[in-house]
Amino acid sequence: MTAKPTLAVVGATGAVGAVLLQILSQRADIWGEIRLIASPRSAGRKLAVRGAEVEVTALSEDAFAGVDVALFEVPDEVAAAWAPVAVARGAVVVDNSAAFRLDPDVPLVVPEVNAHTVRTRPRGIVANPHCTTLTMIVALGALHAEFGLRELVVSSYQAVSGAGRAGVAALRAQLSLVAGTELGTGPGDVRRAVGDDTGPFPEPVALNVVPWAGSLREDGWSSEEMTVRDETRKILGLPRLPVAVTCVRVPVVTTHSLTVHARFQGEVSVDGAREILATAPGVVLCDDPAAGEFPTPADVVGTDPTWVGRVRRALDDPAALELFVCGDNLRKGAALNTAQIAELIAAEPA
Amino acid sequence: MTAKPTLAVVGATGAVGAVLLQILSQRADIWGEIRLIASPRSAGRKLAVRGAEVEVTALSEDAFAGVDVALFEVPDEVAAAWAPVAVARGAVVVDNSAAFRLDPDVPLVVPEVNAHTVRTRPRGIVANPHCTTLTMIVALGALHAEFGLRELVVSSYQAVSGAGRAGVAALRAQLSLVAGTELGTGPGDVRRAVGDDTGPFPEPVALNVVPWAGSLREDGWSSEEMTVRDETRKILGLPRLPVAVTCVRVPVVTTHSLTVHARFQGEVSVDGAREILATAPGVVLCDDPAAGEFPTPADVVGTDPTWVGRVRRALDDPAALELFVCGDNLRKGAALNTAQIAELIAAEPA
Ligand SMILES: NC(=O)c1ccc[n+]([C@@H]2O[C@H](COP(=O)([O-])OP(=O)(O)OC[C@H]3O[C@@H](n4cnc5c(N)ncnc54)[C@H](OP(=O)(O)O)[C@@H]3O)[C@@H](O)[C@H]2O)c1
Ligand SMILES: NC(=O)c1ccc[n+]([C@@H]2O[C@H](COP(=O)([O-])OP(=O)(O)OC[C@H]3O[C@@H](n4cnc5c(N)ncnc54)[C@H](OP(=O)(O)O)[C@@H]3O)[C@@H](O)[C@H]2O)c1
Repeated sequence: MTAKPTLAVVGATGAVGAVLLQILSQRADIWGEIRLIASPRSAGRKLAVRGAEVEVTALSEDAFAGVDVALFEVPDEVAAAWAPVAVARGAVVVDNSAAFRLDPDVPLVVPEVNAHTVRTRPRGIVANPHCTTLTMIVALGALHAEFGLRELVVSSYQAVSGAGRAGVAALRAQLSLVAGTELGTGPGDVRRAVGDDTGPFPEPVALNVVPWAGSLREDGWSSEEMTVRDETRKILGLPRLPVAVTCVRVPVVTTHSLTVHARFQGEVSVDGAREILATAPGVVLCDDPAAGEFPTPADVVGTDPTWVGRVRRALDDPAALELFVCGDNLRKGAALNTAQIAELIAAEPA
Repeated sequence: MTAKPTLAVVGATGAVGAVLLQILSQRADIWGEIRLIASPRSAGRKLAVRGAEVEVTALSEDAFAGVDVALFEVPDEVAAAWAPVAVARGAVVVDNSAAFRLDPDVPLVVPEVNAHTVRTRPRGIVANPHCTTLTMIVALGALHAEFGLRELVVSSYQAVSGAGRAGVAALRAQLSLVAGTELGTGPGDVRRAVGDDTGPFPEPVALNVVPWAGSLREDGWSSEEMTVRDETRKILGLPRLPVAVTCVRVPVVTTHSLTVHARFQGEVSVDGAREILATAPGVVLCDDPAAGEFPTPADVVGTDPTWVGRVRRALDDPAALELFVCGDNLRKGAALNTAQIAELIAAEPA
């Protein structure tokens, strides 16, 4: 790609978009123009990027004129409709929605794990994994390279900003209603205080955990549980990897956490695993419970890496490890990984 | 035991004690005198039980005079020291601390699962399991009886009242500090707002999840993780069952939740599992995601049963089920199970 390519951010006004503008302001300044695009509702708003105010343009075909790389941070249906339009106008699209992730003609890229796949993009589109997959995949990729993954059992503790600005607004509103009360001790008392408007979640999320994320798929699975399984298999190149996932929403603003039970091809050692995690790019090992050291969302939010703690070998299976993993769902889980993919594309020889 | 036996509640002023007094007021009135005991700090306080005010007595040897059954709801070291004293004075002790749970001469009883073991108590002590074990064990016992359990992988979402009154106070104080703010978006901002006093937890629990419960055991395991494994094996009579547990604290007042990946001896069907759970005593099946039905702590708190939802067969293993289970940690997780054990003892032929 030529020096100083033009970048478009589609969805610049959203939860992920806002973080992406911060990240673009912090990373090496490889871009020429950065064009900000959102819905007609936001046209004319000004947002700061790289220290300058940039006016938001309404999404249209012409908005992609001269764009080399377009980062899509919009709902699935908007991405499905408009990514091909941007490609037709000459842009490479990096899409952060679910629209293309499992398309066999679209690479699903995590630069630390499968950077090489970014070059093969017959549709001109590169997909960014779901934030829950991204919370664990860098650490798992490093362990898989050494030990060979055989099975995963994963439970999530997902932050409300995974459901966008609306998710954050819902938690904040609910917290204001329950703080300073004695609620949370009788059946339904929180629900009555919150009322029917639970935002993008099916139940109140303040003083609660909600075992549901996404839409209903076959046999009782949620779409987010299925996507974590399908994406993990695609990224690691293990199309038959057994993956059992339960997704649960928790009252945390930003940063997803996961417990991971990972079984490998043979015996693993905790020391070996810790050494891999301590040196893997993009991973921070934070694991000294005697000193009170393990990652929590409150410490991890706003940072780039995948944080791994509570590394234990299963007591009854010398081939399995237990991990607790945290990652900022708006940074590595979304905006940062998109920016990293865009940088890979920008660095390609012309 | 003779009609109308005398019951003592030791720790009547605590988080579990308070719920136990409610439960004793609601269940069949089989007790003669109910004597309330706590530390000397509480002596003379009056608490309501069965509609009457009863004065709290300070713990002493004489406090057990004439007591038939003594329910201990006190810290481990107090139970370890005083349960044998109560036994020496002629009482059968039902202890809810960790002091005796793994003692081979102390039965660990869940009435729906292993009621028969209550009769063999060489030390005169019966132990109540840990609340995290109790959250899942009634449902698992029913599934095990049909399918034969082979392996468990469990992750917890534990409420703050599992750490007693101090845990509840810590969450409420922290929530008042973070509600109405924009906190939870920068590294350490919640921790700075909360300050150094995080109560019984090693990190702030408001707007956070904390992957730690209990004290440090060997190889990075926490005491609560070990106890869930050891107790599950003891209660189900499966001394070599592989059990991998990760315990995580969440900002919920009361009611623990668990994700459970349970592998059985042979193929299982979701319909078969649902039928077992729908009819098992002490279990409520709450599982219709299309209708938004799954258990959450906010709905389960204050109720007696184990609630089970999100029942799925593992997509890659026809012998494994995924479950999401909720139970009130102060009721079935503590006070209710203790009361049920006491009723079994009271019903024994003299
Ligand atoms: N939040 C996360 O943790 C996360 C992580 C990974 C992936 N994702 C995915 O990233 C995408 C964006 O998520 P988000 O959380 O940032 O959502 P959000 O906060 O709701 O923001 C949505 C963005 O899309 C724009 N938009 C909506 N409809 C549009 C339309 N018809 N035409 C043009 N722009 C439109 C909005 O512009 P206006 O402001 O003008 O309405 C806004 O900029 C989604 O596909 C989501 O699934 C999110
Ligand atoms: N909370 C749960 O979900 C849960 C579940 C299962 C098991 N447990 C176990 O149940 C026990 C009680 O837990 P909790 O949560 O109710 O604790 P808590 O709220 O801290 O109450 C502790 C109780 O023990 C009494 N106590 C403390 N030191 C004493 C002493 N030296 N002599 C006599 N009484 C003393 C206290 O009396 P004062 O008020 O006079 O200090 C109070 O009644 C613990 O072993 C705990 O591990 C708790």
